[in-house]
Amino acid sequence: MFFHHRDLAYTVRVDNPNPVFARMLQQAIGGPEGEMRVMNQYMFQGFGHRGEKKYRDMLLSTATEEIGHIEVLATAVAMNLEGAKAEMVDDVVTNPAVAARMGALEPRHFLSGGLSAMPSDANGVPFNAACIDAGGNLIANMRANVAAEAIGRTLACRLLELTDDPGMKDMLNFLIARDTMHQQQWLAVLEELGPEQATNAPGDYENTANHQQHAYAFFNHLMDEQLPADARWTSGPSLDGKGQFTLAEPAPALGQEPQLQKAPPEVHAGAEATDPTGAGAAARFTRALGSAMDKVTPGA
Amino acid sequence: MFFHHRDLAYTVRVDNPNPVFARMLQQAIGGPEGEMRVMNQYMFQGFGHRGEKKYRDMLLSTATEEIGHIEVLATAVAMNLEGAKAEMVDDVVTNPAVAARMGALEPRHFLSGGLSAMPSDANGVPFNAACIDAGGNLIANMRANVAAEAIGRTLACRLLELTDDPGMKDMLNFLIARDTMHQQQWLAVLEELGPEQATNAPGDYENTANHQQHAYAFFNHLMDEQLPADARWTSGPSLDGKGQFTLAEPAPALGQEPQLQKAPPEVHAGAEATDPTGAGAAARFTRALGSAMDKVTPGA
Amino acid sequence: MFFHHRDLAYTVRVDNPNPVFARMLQQAIGGPEGEMRVMNQYMFQGFGHRGEKKYRDMLLSTATEEIGHIEVLATAVAMNLEGAKAEMVDDVVTNPAVAARMGALEPRHFLSGGLSAMPSDANGVPFNAACIDAGGNLIANMRANVAAEAIGRTLACRLLELTDDPGMKDMLNFLIARDTMHQQQWLAVLEELGPEQATNAPGDYENTANHQQHAYAFFNHLMDEQLPADARWTSGPSLDGKGQFTLAEPAPALGQEPQLQKAPPEVHAGAEATDPTGAGAAARFTRALGSAMDKVTPGA
Amino acid sequence: MFFHHRDLAYTVRVDNPNPVFARMLQQAIGGPEGEMRVMNQYMFQGFGHRGEKKYRDMLLSTATEEIGHIEVLATAVAMNLEGAKAEMVDDVVTNPAVAARMGALEPRHFLSGGLSAMPSDANGVPFNAACIDAGGNLIANMRANVAAEAIGRTLACRLLELTDDPGMKDMLNFLIARDTMHQQQWLAVLEELGPEQATNAPGDYENTANHQQHAYAFFNHLMDEQLPADARWTSGPSLDGKGQFTLAEPAPALGQEPQLQKAPPEVHAGAEATDPTGAGAAARFTRALGSAMDKVTPGA
Amino acid sequence: MFFHHRDLAYTVRVDNPNPVFARMLQQAIGGPEGEMRVMNQYMFQGFGHRGEKKYRDMLLSTATEEIGHIEVLATAVAMNLEGAKAEMVDDVVTNPAVAARMGALEPRHFLSGGLSAMPSDANGVPFNAACIDAGGNLIANMRANVAAEAIGRTLACRLLELTDDPGMKDMLNFLIARDTMHQQQWLAVLEELGPEQATNAPGDYENTANHQQHAYAFFNHLMDEQLPADARWTSGPSLDGKGQFTLAEPAPALGQEPQLQKAPPEVHAGAEATDPTGAGAAARFTRALGSAMDKVTPGA
Amino acid sequence: MFFHHRDLAYTVRVDNPNPVFARMLQQAIGGPEGEMRVMNQYMFQGFGHRGEKKYRDMLLSTATEEIGHIEVLATAVAMNLEGAKAEMVDDVVTNPAVAARMGALEPRHFLSGGLSAMPSDANGVPFNAACIDAGGNLIANMRANVAAEAIGRTLACRLLELTDDPGMKDMLNFLIARDTMHQQQWLAVLEELGPEQATNAPGDYENTANHQQHAYAFFNHLMDEQLPADARWTSGPSLDGKGQFTLAEPAPALGQEPQLQKAPPEVHAGAEATDPTGAGAAARFTRALGSAMDKVTPGA
Repeated sequence: MFFHHRDLAYTVRVDNPNPVFARMLQQAIGGPEGEMRVMNQYMFQGFGHRGEKKYRDMLLSTATEEIGHIEVLATAVAMNLEGAKAEMVDDVVTNPAVAARMGALEPRHFLSGGLSAMPSDANGVPFNAACIDAGGNLIANMRANVAAEAIGRTLACRLLELTDDPGMKDMLNFLIARDTMHQQQWLAVLEELGPEQATNAPGDYENTANHQQHAYAFFNHLMDEQLPADARWTSGPSLDGKGQFTLAEPAPALGQEPQLQKAPPEVHAGAEATDPTGAGAAARFTRALGSAMDKVTPGA
Repeated sequence: MFFHHRDLAYTVRVDNPNPVFARMLQQAIGGPEGEMRVMNQYMFQGFGHRGEKKYRDMLLSTATEEIGHIEVLATAVAMNLEGAKAEMVDDVVTNPAVAARMGALEPRHFLSGGLSAMPSDANGVPFNAACIDAGGNLIANMRANVAAEAIGRTLACRLLELTDDPGMKDMLNFLIARDTMHQQQWLAVLEELGPEQATNAPGDYENTANHQQHAYAFFNHLMDEQLPADARWTSGPSLDGKGQFTLAEPAPALGQEPQLQKAPPEVHAGAEATDPTGAGAAARFTRALGSAMDKVTPGA
Repeated sequence: MFFHHRDLAYTVRVDNPNPVFARMLQQAIGGPEGEMRVMNQYMFQGFGHRGEKKYRDMLLSTATEEIGHIEVLATAVAMNLEGAKAEMVDDVVTNPAVAARMGALEPRHFLSGGLSAMPSDANGVPFNAACIDAGGNLIANMRANVAAEAIGRTLACRLLELTDDPGMKDMLNFLIARDTMHQQQWLAVLEELGPEQATNAPGDYENTANHQQHAYAFFNHLMDEQLPADARWTSGPSLDGKGQFTLAEPAPALGQEPQLQKAPPEVHAGAEATDPTGAGAAARFTRALGSAMDKVTPGA
Repeated sequence: MFFHHRDLAYTVRVDNPNPVFARMLQQAIGGPEGEMRVMNQYMFQGFGHRGEKKYRDMLLSTATEEIGHIEVLATAVAMNLEGAKAEMVDDVVTNPAVAARMGALEPRHFLSGGLSAMPSDANGVPFNAACIDAGGNLIANMRANVAAEAIGRTLACRLLELTDDPGMKDMLNFLIARDTMHQQQWLAVLEELGPEQATNAPGDYENTANHQQHAYAFFNHLMDEQLPADARWTSGPSLDGKGQFTLAEPAPALGQEPQLQKAPPEVHAGAEATDPTGAGAAARFTRALGSAMDKVTPGA
Repeated sequence: MFFHHRDLAYTVRVDNPNPVFARMLQQAIGGPEGEMRVMNQYMFQGFGHRGEKKYRDMLLSTATEEIGHIEVLATAVAMNLEGAKAEMVDDVVTNPAVAARMGALEPRHFLSGGLSAMPSDANGVPFNAACIDAGGNLIANMRANVAAEAIGRTLACRLLELTDDPGMKDMLNFLIARDTMHQQQWLAVLEELGPEQATNAPGDYENTANHQQHAYAFFNHLMDEQLPADARWTSGPSLDGKGQFTLAEPAPALGQEPQLQKAPPEVHAGAEATDPTGAGAAARFTRALGSAMDKVTPGA
Repeated sequence: MFFHHRDLAYTVRVDNPNPVFARMLQQAIGGPEGEMRVMNQYMFQGFGHRGEKKYRDMLLSTATEEIGHIEVLATAVAMNLEGAKAEMVDDVVTNPAVAARMGALEPRHFLSGGLSAMPSDANGVPFNAACIDAGGNLIANMRANVAAEAIGRTLACRLLELTDDPGMKDMLNFLIARDTMHQQQWLAVLEELGPEQATNAPGDYENTANHQQHAYAFFNHLMDEQLPADARWTSGPSLDGKGQFTLAEPAPALGQEPQLQKAPPEVHAGAEATDPTGAGAAARFTRALGSAMDKVTPGA
């Protein structure tokens, strides 16, 4: 269960409120690079963890920290919406640099939020949990988490480029420091679990012998294009120590030209695609679906 | 530009067509763990790459390979929909094990696809590009790519558990081998770029001195819970070699209790939240928005 | 079945066409506060109503009214796109106040709609039926409907703040009056159904005796924070007359620390989370899924 | 900021693990009736609250409680996935009642979650923040919150119908009790704010005199259908005490037949819809968009 | 404005209620092949039509008809949920054919809808307006409408294969007849507008002379694959009478190998992709964005 | 399988980089009118084609061409983000026409893409595969494809109106020429298949005799509105030559007024909608769902 402390995880100070910057900060709340993603990602990874307690604790502790980051950012959005440089309203009539800002406002900050943060990205697209990677394999989870923090720290650095406000810069630098730690800690778990597990998730499945040749070959799908044969990823030992990188041409001979059966009449695929006898095995899917509805002979 | 070869990237052989397995394979096509994600992720990373040509080539080559994997899986779906063990239709009336299968069909394979694959996941949820991570920083991209392949290989291993079909097992083992190579190759790029860049993306931004203390401390947000002080992620040098991991309690004193201004009347926030004088800075957002519409004095 | 009358539900007059205001109006069409939501919400509630005919009639009548409101707003959008103050094109070169407007256009009004309304919100996010609340319990439905109209009237009031156009103001004031009636009518149904049913939906399920203590206690999840013990929601009789509000600390002792079983090998959860004997009950899910596909012994 | 306590908010005990029930519980996690919605709804309402501190505290306290409910439900899902009645695997071969269950599994619980809960609904549709109502007006917020809890309690009651498991029944009854309190507490705030504000949100905008007649009239959009003239919502005083309900026919005369201008050539609307002179005001939108791109004369 | 008549657009009779068929019917309500799409598509096309009144009338008349089709289908769903063959509950224990049906239920019909239709497809995916094609060019609109009806009639034919219920078959045959008329009527408009306009939308833009060669050539992107040189689409006159179909190899020489500039430092693209001097033109985007926020020299 | 050639499908030359135009181009990448839709639409249609090989080849060839168009457009986006007219940065301070541009930037081009294209539309809404029409009937597919290209060519013509850049105009004119060919080729297939099949998809289902009267009648749902009785779609032979168009009033007598059964108690529909005896057939759905979970008597 969870508890809330009245203090923010870090001071939010806005010296020059800027509603356009409020819009930009939304990307760090509800975008795929943002805190709602990592908060939910770590939370669901933790809730479902079936291994050592210390990893569950670690995941839930950091997930809990991330809720607080949403709070920090939502507060920063609200405070940036509280005003703007004093001259704004007058200046907009005569000052092009100020006018430029107008079009970049997120209108739902006013229309829908009444001057507060939204669970959306910088373009007002609502957060969608489809971007949460929580696959139930600790290594794959750690890989997803390092990625999320690497992307998140990059976003924070870019946000930093867009403000001169000392308070906002300090807050972003704090968040960048935390993104550093989070990248480091997930990488540390990968080191702790050992390279055997970590360099080829899931670590508990070995490639079959007959596909060993496909497991360390870079397939060149580029026509008339020379790829470096001495890159780290085309030569030398693989990172899991189980193979040698090679550079290979993809062999069309590996696969056949597909030949699908014609469709049975009940699919209504059109004359040119239908086997009118309905004898084809493809008929069975429809019949099975019919069976599932007590209709044993669809199309009959 | 792209070209298509009539042969599949790998042989698709279905010995015992199984429409429920067709549904399961959809997860590897249109799910966040699937080929549509990685194909688009590598494609857009490649299209936008501003660095060395070899990385652009590498990204586009593997992206192109992945389109072929969508084709392989879509063909496998279509072939699994072509029929079922000969006895199915009759057996469903008397055989519970066969009956069990009926409910697990994806009805849109018939209703919408006419016995073909859909650009959706195993539950029929359409592919959504929100899950594509293509952030324009090579290291963050590589991290996202390792993650996607680790998750994808885990999915393929689980799919392997759900079939006894020799053809399907062979196809999945090929894809698992390719997921191995792809994990390895993105990791190899990270090694090639060097640990300085790679262990803390983006590698070109150093944490500020005043937040150095926050960059390597594990914040324990768990109440009354002892975390291991000697884990790889709570002690010893950080992986970027720039700090020492510590275990710390999050300090509420870092942040303040937020105090938002009351809203101006034009927000219609309700009596208890409104500053009737409208003198508050918050009024400016609405006025700015009004200005953007040639309405200089909203609320007046 | 439905019929269309050529007259709009209310006059749409645009004195000074304003394409930025056209964008703002989209929120009232396709946003979660908008007419597409309420139209579909009342429609599906009415279609599925299993109780008294008068409520079905009421729901469908107002749903039908709302289609007409979409028509009114879509017409208002189209008319606002028809032009702008005569001086716009010339002025943009020299007038910052006019220039400010440019960036706030919704480009899909031109690119995708050819100067017409879209089924989207003010940021161009398409309407998504996920926000429709139609749960098949009349009281819960009425609660959802009051909420939707309260939110919708708030949006309309905010839109009113953004225009000086007499025609647009008059149209919005008409819609605000209708939102008033709609709030009132759903509240009237709640009164008609009686407080016993209405103050605790669904009204046909009584809390169990052993949880009576949890049914009227405000749990304080705030640390070191004093909540008012004499607020309407922390003291005195509850609104359903069945309990007394109290202020309570959430009791960790109510729940246990979760202990999930290790995963069976076929989950590929990684070494640290796997029970290699596979004897755990968790193995059964995978096996059941395998059974559903005639593969009785997955992982074997 | 937030903290996590290792104990669940309520005991989760699963006597007879049932993976189909695990799927059903997902609706209470990631569906529009579920905990992810209310948690985010209260959280964002609290983060953006500009009024009295006690309401901010109240919102954040209950939001924090809801995170714990997600944890409770996610744990319940994971434990229901841990197994099934001992006989399942064998029984599926011969027992139709057991077989029936197979098709109703959520395959992503295995494929994507590795036997853990997903941030999705009972059909595997990922949570989408579009359904969060957080509009920045306290009364509209309270209305949305009562609705969400009424819908949520209804869902919980329905889930209760689908299980005989004593542990699950007890957990659901606890959640039902909490949904009772939450409905009561939001209603109590509405009472506290007073009927003047609460019965017609936003309470700070009075209907204009010329639309007073439209503010309390039920418009009958049903043809040849007699509506009760003496229902609570067609007669008597309105609930805000400011009008009398009436039953009225919608007057087509209120609105005109819309007449849109023909499109300018640059819209490419087709011959029958184009004004070839381009003199129409509609040309201005395109020109303005062109201006925004330093292209003053689009179409020229 | 709109009116509702109490009679359905066609009789809905369900002789043998079948909740699995209720699920299947959902595809015709909320799927991309369904009535919510066409209703909204025709509605928004009509609302925005800027040409002849008869087309606006036609679009709105058929749009209005389609709302009634949603009502018909929603009623059919509700009636199919009302029960099942009398023996179902008992039979499920011993009858595999009945058991098969259980897994194919849409659980949200109970959990969320309380035995009523949902605004979703057969898999419970909510309707999304992204699939609405309403582009503001009458010919493109007609093309989209013919397509939608062709797809819709195909779906209805497939649904017909899945039921033996006489009432359901009659209702579907009525809808199929209407889908016939709708296909015919949109085709008739295309004939009315004349082939010059209709065979190459938008009809008011002629291909430029230098690209005339690309306007009627089928580009063969298949490697080592012979395409028929005498198909209707590789030889003979084009359908707009303005060219001759040819079969051509795509010429790589048409395009260059892309060379993107390195990124400026403020993008944080990583060392290998950054131009440290920041002199590149790419710096300007960031600077412009900074300007929009009164921060003229980002990165400085 | 697929291969990539280093040359673009057409030259991308940007004389005056314009980041606002980059945003506009996104609509042609990830919007419903864009290349991601058609690429996936043709790809999945081809993968699932069960008829003549030449159509599969045709679909896959053009699908492959479309990937190259995504590449062309993504490159054009990246190059438009590389800078702007030299004077931009300085001019923004003093030049309103330049300032106007600022607000129309897509901020995620910087924040998320690091100056590269996104898999999204002009408003930053991610591509969603729900808009892909791939229904497994060749005629319906062709109809959907003509529609997609008609819409796509219209979008390209509108984009052309928004730029003066010679390189961008040339690229768009090339794409417009290809959209011409694609419209023509899908129409040619329809001609090749013959009017009998093509004018009423699916061509293999004849309307039943008793609904022949509904198959060619235009139903006038407009009240008091005269529709032309001599339009191509209200008189004369239908386009499939199987009927005569007529103009008809929709007959309410065709359908009944719906009467749904009351709900069983376990639905918790509320007192006014519940049949307390539970004898109604509606109880069976819930019971069946309960059966599916080994709970034979829910509600008991």
